[in-house]
Amino acid sequence: MDEFGYTTAVETRYSDFDTMGHVNNAVYATYLEQARLDYFGDVIGIPLDEISGVVAHLEIDYRRSITPEDEVTVAMRVAELGESSITMEHEIRAGADVAATAEVVQVAIDGNTGDPRPIPPELRDRIITYEGL
Amino acid sequence: MDEFGYTTAVETRYSDFDTMGHVNNAVYATYLEQARLDYFGDVIGIPLDEISGVVAHLEIDYRRSITPEDEVTVAMRVAELGESSITMEHEIRAGADVAATAEVVQVAIDGNTGDPRPIPPELRDRIITYEGL
Amino acid sequence: MDEFGYTTAVETRYSDFDTMGHVNNAVYATYLEQARLDYFGDVIGIPLDEISGVVAHLEIDYRRSITPEDEVTVAMRVAELGESSITMEHEIRAGADVAATAEVVQVAIDGNTGDPRPIPPELRDRIITYEGL
Amino acid sequence: MDEFGYTTAVETRYSDFDTMGHVNNAVYATYLEQARLDYFGDVIGIPLDEISGVVAHLEIDYRRSITPEDEVTVAMRVAELGESSITMEHEIRAGADVAATAEVVQVAIDGNTGDPRPIPPELRDRIITYEGL
Repeated sequence: MDEFGYTTAVETRYSDFDTMGHVNNAVYATYLEQARLDYFGDVIGIPLDEISGVVAHLEIDYRRSITPEDEVTVAMRVAELGESSITMEHEIRAGADVAATAEVVQVAIDGNTGDPRPIPPELRDRIITYEGL
Repeated sequence: MDEFGYTTAVETRYSDFDTMGHVNNAVYATYLEQARLDYFGDVIGIPLDEISGVVAHLEIDYRRSITPEDEVTVAMRVAELGESSITMEHEIRAGADVAATAEVVQVAIDGNTGDPRPIPPELRDRIITYEGL
Repeated sequence: MDEFGYTTAVETRYSDFDTMGHVNNAVYATYLEQARLDYFGDVIGIPLDEISGVVAHLEIDYRRSITPEDEVTVAMRVAELGESSITMEHEIRAGADVAATAEVVQVAIDGNTGDPRPIPPELRDRIITYEGL
Repeated sequence: MDEFGYTTAVETRYSDFDTMGHVNNAVYATYLEQARLDYFGDVIGIPLDEISGVVAHLEIDYRRSITPEDEVTVAMRVAELGESSITMEHEIRAGADVAATAEVVQVAIDGNTGDPRPIPPELRDRIITYEGL
């Protein structure tokens, strides 16, 4: 059974590929970002850019390279909700293979001061409901 | 005392900055890549592209945002040498501040099979000498 | 009536947007590239990377900015076939609006020498048929 | 004699290079952008981001590919000043070779309405003085 409730497709671009014909390691972080935007916009119903937040931690384990022929999808779930932080787990998939696993921690911040602030209650509720946390 | 023996400057680009005026989180991985290239080319004397290698692990802790006014430098050192893996530690600095800390594990691979292979002895020796490992 | 026979959708990315919240001018060239790849792969049936070719000329007229809400499509057609060059015309559209018009000239080259060479006959035939040239 | 009064260096990045080992065509537009920022910041003394402006036209003629060994510089000059538009000419150089020539037209806009507005007099004066227009 798949532990990830949400999966979204990512279009690779020619410029994502490096001189060896593989998606550059930094671009995986961009794929994760696209998946987050899709998740918050489509599933949670609150666009990520309406939530003042910053990435506090990013961790990627690369398992196999991605080539131009691959169809790329990103599976994700919210694994943990802190007072002001959201911990997300991801699988970047190339076809049926896991190309990478990743964890991203996003922190809600006060747009003016830049300091962490509690996750807005409505956002928290929707994530809890969707993820069954 | 600075635990990093090597520091290199990175030119930020206008396109690195997101809608909030901060360097996008994925671009930090590009800055790390540029620092690795500089380190292997300038210090170790073996261009990174002559070493068949792939990034196996990337981990970034973001501490403060980078804005267009910031002078960015990346400090790095090789922290550990495995049979086929090189573990590198980094600080991405914005002026005098630490904007992020990061760890990257690169694995030497056989260019034909893609399988891990031992780090070439000459490369190992030069890193050990430079880093005092 | 639409003078463009071919239209393809392009996914914008968060990192395409600059500090003003508009797609960066250089990214339009990436959208054109994605459209070319789609056109040659899907319509002409010959992947662009199997045709040794280089971009010789790029010209973009920007008419309105693209924002995160916009659905972006690229319309294109081959306007002219030279001995070794393919002239393509494009409209980058944001919803129903024309965000930019563009012309790209691609030149077939010999992969070994880098010199221009005639467009392969099969490719020429398929383009002529598709475009009704 | 060089017709360009201003030249600036651009650092290439590993991620600028495509699967053929050449700088991707879209990245040339990024190099032009960096050169504009340098020119307006260093020479004219007015940072480009303080001038509300948009790129209205971009035209690049590619002459030779840029490879990782190349030192890249961009030469530029303001060729023409309109009521609200600035026409710039560029050479992107790879070592001593001209890798591309380019023209960019930037238009001053009203930050609120997005409509063209006259170039601020102080900016106009400084450009005229520097360029000897």
